[in-house]
Amino acid sequence: MSEKPVSPRTPGLFVYRRRRFGALAASRKAVACGVDALLITDPANIRYLSGSTEGASALLIGKGRTLLYTNRMFEVRAGREAPGCVIRVPNGSLWEDLGEVLKRRGVNVLGIEDHHLTVHRYRQLEAACEGLEFRGVGSAVALRRSVKDDGEMARIRRAVVIAELALLKLVRRGAVWFVRRSEKEIAAELEYRMRLAGADRPGFATIVASGPNTYNCHHVPTHRKPRWNEPLLFDWGAEFDGYRSDITRTFFLGDPPAELAEVYGVVLRAHDAAVAAVGPGVCAHTVDAAARKIIRAAGYAREFRHGLGHSFGLEIHEPPNFGGKPPQGRGTVLRRNLVITVEPGVYIQGLGGVRIEDDILVTAGGSERLNRLPRDLETMTLR
Amino acid sequence: MSEKPVSPRTPGLFVYRRRRFGALAASRKAVACGVDALLITDPANIRYLSGSTEGASALLIGKGRTLLYTNRMFEVRAGREAPGCVIRVPNGSLWEDLGEVLKRRGVNVLGIEDHHLTVHRYRQLEAACEGLEFRGVGSAVALRRSVKDDGEMARIRRAVVIAELALLKLVRRGAVWFVRRSEKEIAAELEYRMRLAGADRPGFATIVASGPNTYNCHHVPTHRKPRWNEPLLFDWGAEFDGYRSDITRTFFLGDPPAELAEVYGVVLRAHDAAVAAVGPGVCAHTVDAAARKIIRAAGYAREFRHGLGHSFGLEIHEPPNFGGKPPQGRGTVLRRNLVITVEPGVYIQGLGGVRIEDDILVTAGGSERLNRLPRDLETMTLR
Repeated sequence: MSEKPVSPRTPGLFVYRRRRFGALAASRKAVACGVDALLITDPANIRYLSGSTEGASALLIGKGRTLLYTNRMFEVRAGREAPGCVIRVPNGSLWEDLGEVLKRRGVNVLGIEDHHLTVHRYRQLEAACEGLEFRGVGSAVALRRSVKDDGEMARIRRAVVIAELALLKLVRRGAVWFVRRSEKEIAAELEYRMRLAGADRPGFATIVASGPNTYNCHHVPTHRKPRWNEPLLFDWGAEFDGYRSDITRTFFLGDPPAELAEVYGVVLRAHDAAVAAVGPGVCAHTVDAAARKIIRAAGYAREFRHGLGHSFGLEIHEPPNFGGKPPQGRGTVLRRNLVITVEPGVYIQGLGGVRIEDDILVTAGGSERLNRLPRDLETMTLR
Repeated sequence: MSEKPVSPRTPGLFVYRRRRFGALAASRKAVACGVDALLITDPANIRYLSGSTEGASALLIGKGRTLLYTNRMFEVRAGREAPGCVIRVPNGSLWEDLGEVLKRRGVNVLGIEDHHLTVHRYRQLEAACEGLEFRGVGSAVALRRSVKDDGEMARIRRAVVIAELALLKLVRRGAVWFVRRSEKEIAAELEYRMRLAGADRPGFATIVASGPNTYNCHHVPTHRKPRWNEPLLFDWGAEFDGYRSDITRTFFLGDPPAELAEVYGVVLRAHDAAVAAVGPGVCAHTVDAAARKIIRAAGYAREFRHGLGHSFGLEIHEPPNFGGKPPQGRGTVLRRNLVITVEPGVYIQGLGGVRIEDDILVTAGGSERLNRLPRDLETMTLR
């Protein structure tokens, strides 16, 4: 009985491929960076390189076979999930064991994930590895993760389909169903439907916001019930076999207020313009500017309060910072097989907000929208 | 419309009290540690001391008013949630702004949370604060969190009730309901029921394990359906207003296999013995030994593969390490108002495992079991 059955639609081969070549490439890259070995401590990176989903504390790559450190509870599972690694369960301290291994392997310069390793653990490592030189590799491994392979894309597509199917189940019940339930109840139902559709869990904390609550981009569902002629915003996604989806739709229960209907049109045009600007070699700032220009022209520049989007995959926010507003996103250039969200939004205090978010794959020819859900105002108006 | 309505059963007063006196006490303690100010970066500690639930990047305590660093998106919410703090949204880099503030306040020694701060961020902080001395305070703040006040206990009790009510809803459907559903579906239903009962989300990844899968203490629900005369293990909990519960029950669908029925009796006796040993001033190791002695006497010493339990609250695993097997838990002495889990388990390869877990409050007189769910084998046998 395998623990995480991979569906026939998501080829299992890639895991093997990634494990073998991913770890190899990382180790080669490490040598190119001038380090003898790499110590991976970020769980998402450990999972990406080894296949181990839980319980591993460190992965050592370089100058010998790849070592996966875990504890006795996860030993058997780690061996099954990471067949390309030697599983190591230290009897005493992880750092002392690591110090001995590094000494034996003749490692002089060790690459560490300084974006993840804590000061406390770093000092323990330093104490255990006298004479060793440490070099931070920043988010180098996380950046490698940004370009998705076929198996990863299959999982992300599946996560998108699961999230969309779940929302459709709710929307088909009609507006009356929504006005009788609180944001919390609607969120519970949406997450339940995602689980039944195959999600391992929600991809992140589901946002269901109604009326004036839609003003808050990071709203936490409350006991408030949506009312007629109000916006109802969903920002939700699923996690499937480690990979996520992230979608936003803004509905209206009955006729939308006139200003929000106008805002909806602006956000939709901004969204389309941004998606049209996506392509390999394009600067993230250019994509952001395409959306921001339309929103500024409509007079809502100050009401678009956040970045245009973010990369995602094993984590819901991943490097590179696709982010919106300069200077953060200025330096990032989009590459083929990057998966990003495009999510412009306009938020008007007291009235509410509109946000539209799709998951976009950067392709050779430009971009592919991974979502199938409609976005036009007519469909978004539930009666 | 408040964002997170506090139920009438959970007094709101404590938040104010904690914010004021918690921050004050932490700052006094900081001065006692020989530091001029404390920089809190662990989100759970920021929430504990300030009340801010999301989006805050740092909290500065000492030599002036308490500063809460956040970004523009969370500015309004942070102001509402943390009225005792001055909200600060730096225009440029957090570290540079912090450097200026520390200089202005005449801070010479800054306490940092070295168990949470990454090497990368620490180096940015160092670069921005020339001439400053840094001192790691370890898990000092997290240890302060371990002793719960009345408001915190009200939330934990509520999280326990929510989790128990949700499971009862499922169990009342009878054994036939379970054998027709996969572990994944059962977990989805359980989490849905917790949400409807008032949970913000599951307290951690719900474990539903059937048959031989119960051997794995950290099982991830699969598509396997439970069968007759097999164990069915639930390890689940709810999160309510930040605080969690964590319970385990092992059921049998129809008559349990003879060996597991015997194991159940052993684990139950070990559990009772451990709970009876809990009290203020008792060493964690003594509690662990009470359970382990009974399991060893029954010949299952090697099959009890994990620690006896852990502290919890805002996080599902918190310091102090109540943990079981020496040497980890040896040094910890239980104090009044600590909340811990007691969860002995015996796992037999091929056959399955039994674990019983209750949430225990250390009281002046000994301990209080927060759960109400029965644990006897007769009730656990579903027909």
